Amino acid sequence: MTFEWKTIDSALRVEPGKPSKLSKRDTACDNLFADKREGEALAKANAKAIDRLQDALWAEGSRALLVVLQGIDTSGKDGTVRGVFNECGPLGVNVTAFGTPNEQELAHDYLWRVHKAVPRKGLIGIFNRSHYEDVLVVKVRGLVPADVIEQRYAQINAFERHLSENGTTILKFMLHISKDEQRKRLQARLEEPDKHWKFNPGDLEDRKLWTQFANAYETMLDRCSTEHAPWHVIPSDRKWQRNAAISSIVRGALETMMPLYPKARWKPGEFIIE
Amino acid sequence: MTFEWKTIDSALRVEPGKPSKLSKRDTACDNLFADKREGEALAKANAKAIDRLQDALWAEGSRALLVVLQGIDTSGKDGTVRGVFNECGPLGVNVTAFGTPNEQELAHDYLWRVHKAVPRKGLIGIFNRSHYEDVLVVKVRGLVPADVIEQRYAQINAFERHLSENGTTILKFMLHISKDEQRKRLQARLEEPDKHWKFNPGDLEDRKLWTQFANAYETMLDRCSTEHAPWHVIPSDRKWQRNAAISSIVRGALETMMPLYPKARWKPGEFIIE
Repeated sequence: MTFEWKTIDSALRVEPGKPSKLSKRDTACDNLFADKREGEALAKANAKAIDRLQDALWAEGSRALLVVLQGIDTSGKDGTVRGVFNECGPLGVNVTAFGTPNEQELAHDYLWRVHKAVPRKGLIGIFNRSHYEDVLVVKVRGLVPADVIEQRYAQINAFERHLSENGTTILKFMLHISKDEQRKRLQARLEEPDKHWKFNPGDLEDRKLWTQFANAYETMLDRCSTEHAPWHVIPSDRKWQRNAAISSIVRGALETMMPLYPKARWKPGEFIIE
Repeated sequence: MTFEWKTIDSALRVEPGKPSKLSKRDTACDNLFADKREGEALAKANAKAIDRLQDALWAEGSRALLVVLQGIDTSGKDGTVRGVFNECGPLGVNVTAFGTPNEQELAHDYLWRVHKAVPRKGLIGIFNRSHYEDVLVVKVRGLVPADVIEQRYAQINAFERHLSENGTTILKFMLHISKDEQRKRLQARLEEPDKHWKFNPGDLEDRKLWTQFANAYETMLDRCSTEHAPWHVIPSDRKWQRNAAISSIVRGALETMMPLYPKARWKPGEFIIE
């Protein structure tokens, strides 16, 4: 098993400036990994590597990594955090879940609460949903006028460019599942009592707007995949494929950042510990 | 292997109102666990149980757990987070490290930044250092007058009582290591290049004040171990003992809280997912 993250990265990346062709992208993908066993082993090895790299990122103390997770209900955002980042743990990873904005947040522009939550230097920050909701659910539900939405793509690109130029590497993942897979997952929440709390009857309303959401996602991918903050569309019908793919891309990005342990400004020999 | 957390809890707890007798407490402790293998297995099982319990705590959504970690340099605060809480992961655990207060923090009372950082309902919050620094390093270094320090013990108890009465269970752990063990750990930081960044020559200044710090810790334990927020003194010379002990006490506390998955206000049969 070799670590060929570049193959995985380019297969799933949305090339900046090119149409994302979302409807033609796989929700399950059998040509990237030999089989489930290999995929799981790869994800595990990647998780350990991410942990080591984050330790160096912290020691270095000058840059951060921001991972944006977007996807419809049941697409596996929480599962991705567990599968890819638990090895790293709460010490190195900071998760922010963005829900319906509260009164104070609505009293500011939509990027205000997002900027507050970006990871500090040395950390991996994860956005579970993000500012992209402001061009997804907000657009589909018509919560703001169309011309306001239209401005947002460029505003978001400018914001992300700013973060990137100031030391934050950005990776964005759309967890892509089929309509049939969502049905199975919602059904499972109905059938398992310990998962009842995860089922929100309102989710079925969003499901009725499947096509509208798919269109909004496609426009988002077309307009906001940039060199400094690329989108990847992750086949997520199978959890092991999702974890193997995302962990590979994250690990590859961290290896490219190449965080270095700082050199001491003292000589080990100069200290005697009494 | 049975899970006898109550034995471990009472052996290490500082009984409210009784002298902590810190100098007589073990930094290594061979009577709590049969051997290293058993201790590690116990810690692993506990970590999995803590993860399951936190999931229910989140689903329930009405209470939180706050874990305070205090200890001198190299006592293993970061290692505890990894060893006990990585199974739970960044989704369920929020770590706040308290360093030297910044200008804005110093412009407020010393509990201001602490209150801002308490865990939201459903989460486990970990304080890596805490408001107790304000009766430890601040006292030893004489940064505020003695009568101001003297007031703080009761202020802290009142603050913690407030949190406890409002749904936050509090556990406080002092990671107790011997002076000789600290020497070995500081020495290791000097010898391993990838650990050089962790070595701060200033730590040696604190080491020279070993007795003063021990006295300040003892007073803190005597005055601030309460029924609603008890201190435990954890033998921490051996990492596996530390992890086995802390994970047992945390698991026991969560089992006592007994978080419950909420019952759905709908009947599974009433939904058809198209």
